[in-house]
Amino acid sequence: MPLVRIDIPHGKPDPWIRAVADGVHAALVATGTVPEADRFQVVNEHAPGRLIADPAFQGFARGPDFTLVQIFWSAGRTNDIKRGLYAAIARNLGADPGLRGDDVMVALTESTRVDWSFGAGIAQYVPEG
Amino acid sequence: MPLVRIDIPHGKPDPWIRAVADGVHAALVATGTVPEADRFQVVNEHAPGRLIADPAFQGFARGPDFTLVQIFWSAGRTNDIKRGLYAAIARNLGADPGLRGDDVMVALTESTRVDWSFGAGIAQYVPEG
Amino acid sequence: MPLVRIDIPHGKPDPWIRAVADGVHAALVATGTVPEADRFQVVNEHAPGRLIADPAFQGFARGPDFTLVQIFWSAGRTNDIKRGLYAAIARNLGADPGLRGDDVMVALTESTRVDWSFGAGIAQYVPEG
Repeated sequence: MPLVRIDIPHGKPDPWIRAVADGVHAALVATGTVPEADRFQVVNEHAPGRLIADPAFQGFARGPDFTLVQIFWSAGRTNDIKRGLYAAIARNLGADPGLRGDDVMVALTESTRVDWSFGAGIAQYVPEG
Repeated sequence: MPLVRIDIPHGKPDPWIRAVADGVHAALVATGTVPEADRFQVVNEHAPGRLIADPAFQGFARGPDFTLVQIFWSAGRTNDIKRGLYAAIARNLGADPGLRGDDVMVALTESTRVDWSFGAGIAQYVPEG
Repeated sequence: MPLVRIDIPHGKPDPWIRAVADGVHAALVATGTVPEADRFQVVNEHAPGRLIADPAFQGFARGPDFTLVQIFWSAGRTNDIKRGLYAAIARNLGADPGLRGDDVMVALTESTRVDWSFGAGIAQYVPEG
């Protein structure tokens, strides 16, 4: 049920994009209690000046590869799970496509389990009551 | 006040896109306690590989028409209202443009009534207090 | 930590876009208890029919410059802070690029402080506990 929005700079080759999407999903599965098949991602590529990140906030040195990962999912994950997820995303994207940790931002937004319908007009997680 | 983000595959004709947007809004009005004039929607079209959905999660058979509907609105709707909304969206999009239920995903995210300004820099629903 | 998504019509010149992004951020700094360097914004431009706003809801006269500002940030701001933010955004965008108040919509969505990682796979605001 995570819905993941990934915002990246324009002009990256398909394998780069695929590596980012795969790495984020693998992190969710490995650390975020997300099933392997529960994958829904939207990748948006942005021309210069449309994906804006302060180059230094919190002591980082952000560059042209800045990548934003926004994850919508149900509440209930502990702080430890969230911290493990951030670490896994940074580690995975560092391995492939080779993103520096400075360029990986993650933001979470929580909803509840009745807030999801995966198809057929049904609330699969809370079908009644 | 719903803010609706609709993510669809690239290459659909304008009437298809309009039918999706209209059908989602009609469902919100019919089942979600949303006024007819309270319509704010953002449609994003995605090239192949940028709108990623598992083909089978929860038993569905998702195809190239996979359409994601993300709705931001104020908390307060019951589970029954949410279930009625999902059913109405799937029904409407099934009728026009003919989307299969397998290809319609809906995700809700809630905020509160003071979180909305419809214009002029005013919080119309909670202007004071 | 705000993550700001700005949806605008297609075809605006870069200075117009920059003025909107700058004006929103300046409002967050001036009224929303956001540090100057805490700037993360995504601007999306939309072809006709993809950014849909009712022309009259809540008594406004929306036109082709309709601009949607969606802000994700941590909970904790008071109603007064939110109202001050809406007013500042409308005022700033009215001054430059000259947007009418009728064309400025703002929506907030709240998360918590552990929901943010600004880099290196760390939850900077809640690194432990």
